[in-house]
Amino acid sequence: MKRMKCVISYDGTNFSGFQVQPLKRTVQSELEKALKKIHKGQDIRIFPSGRTDRGVHAIRQTIHFDTSNQMNEKSWKKALNALLPEDVYVKETKHVPSSFHARFSAIEKEYRYVILNTQEPDVFRRHYAYHFPYALDMTQMRKACHYLEGKHDFTAFSSARSTVKGSKVRTLYEASCQQKGSDIMFVFRGDGFLYHMVRILVGTLLEVGQGKRKPEHIKQLLKQQDRKQSGKTAPPQGLYLWDVTYPE
Amino acid sequence: MKRMKCVISYDGTNFSGFQVQPLKRTVQSELEKALKKIHKGQDIRIFPSGRTDRGVHAIRQTIHFDTSNQMNEKSWKKALNALLPEDVYVKETKHVPSSFHARFSAIEKEYRYVILNTQEPDVFRRHYAYHFPYALDMTQMRKACHYLEGKHDFTAFSSARSTVKGSKVRTLYEASCQQKGSDIMFVFRGDGFLYHMVRILVGTLLEVGQGKRKPEHIKQLLKQQDRKQSGKTAPPQGLYLWDVTYPE
Repeated sequence: MKRMKCVISYDGTNFSGFQVQPLKRTVQSELEKALKKIHKGQDIRIFPSGRTDRGVHAIRQTIHFDTSNQMNEKSWKKALNALLPEDVYVKETKHVPSSFHARFSAIEKEYRYVILNTQEPDVFRRHYAYHFPYALDMTQMRKACHYLEGKHDFTAFSSARSTVKGSKVRTLYEASCQQKGSDIMFVFRGDGFLYHMVRILVGTLLEVGQGKRKPEHIKQLLKQQDRKQSGKTAPPQGLYLWDVTYPE
Repeated sequence: MKRMKCVISYDGTNFSGFQVQPLKRTVQSELEKALKKIHKGQDIRIFPSGRTDRGVHAIRQTIHFDTSNQMNEKSWKKALNALLPEDVYVKETKHVPSSFHARFSAIEKEYRYVILNTQEPDVFRRHYAYHFPYALDMTQMRKACHYLEGKHDFTAFSSARSTVKGSKVRTLYEASCQQKGSDIMFVFRGDGFLYHMVRILVGTLLEVGQGKRKPEHIKQLLKQQDRKQSGKTAPPQGLYLWDVTYPE
């Protein structure tokens, strides 16, 4: 058996998220369907670095699976892309040691969130950015981002529906926002993320940008650990799983 | 009765083109459905500057219609956008004299065609650019564009399926191509365009870019007036109706 690591990109628009669900079109089910064909009817299970929700996109999601197929890396990439639908694309395929695990070996993840900050909507970007027509103060949002960096308990920025047990302490190596024309892009890099964490962070930061909260309020939210005190969950279409980093 | 002129944008991906067709989702049928609601069940016919095909996009398509509704221009824009689906957007609404006609008053049209010239496809642009992974010689394509400018019989660049009678002489004020990173954009401005004309022009120019034809061959094609001698019809997703110009 050989373990394969794949870096994949997908447009989340027409998927009911990553994870397999009965009767739903998901990224995982499309990948497993392609693998089943390559393995002549044998079921192959894939493991992602983590799930993404309905409508969320990926630039470099990473998965692994085990196979007895002897194809070389280049042929794997060709074979998978020939079988996958046009909204999923395999960018890289690599043989890895069996100690590699797409989820447990990951040491860093990067998410980005794109805001289209114009008065008028753009029909071409409705699935790829969050159209937010209100004025935003970049300086205030940058200050707020600064308070998010470092090791904190992010309970206040985690979905109340989350069923994850255990620590909600995570480390953000970077929380920043940049402006390019009428686009605003938030960048979050960290050792791990809680359910809906990036979207709640963005929802809260937008309230800071509108002047509804002071940047310093972030400190209080981190301390209080109460989801009800933080902002709305921003919609999925602005969110991109941008990269996953592994050792070496 | 008042005549309204509207500038609209649409993402052509999920439409079976502009024109009404039984049982199909088209831009015209969505617009007329919205107008019917505004007019309490009365059918209102709209007239575009011209049709666009399935999968073709519009940045500034222009239409007109007649109405007895007394709303001001700003309210018209709001009312239409509130009723239209998210892949059509009304950018401008204006009262115009009854002599105005979206098709017959137009003095210039601009189309653009976007090529994604990279080895690897981009899942996020599959509906918005033509992925063309082969090397292209910009200098040769620019030379070829130059031969297209001016007043010519464009029969060689018109669909053989075209049922249009009458002259196929058109004037191109501009035919050009520009490169921006891995994007190549063709710009065509003219007094009118034949069926599939831009897509056949692009298909032929790409063959020049690949070295399969000399730029000078364009002169011969214009003279021969034979569709079979020109290039393939480029796919619809790269094509944008960019603007329509009217006098004054």
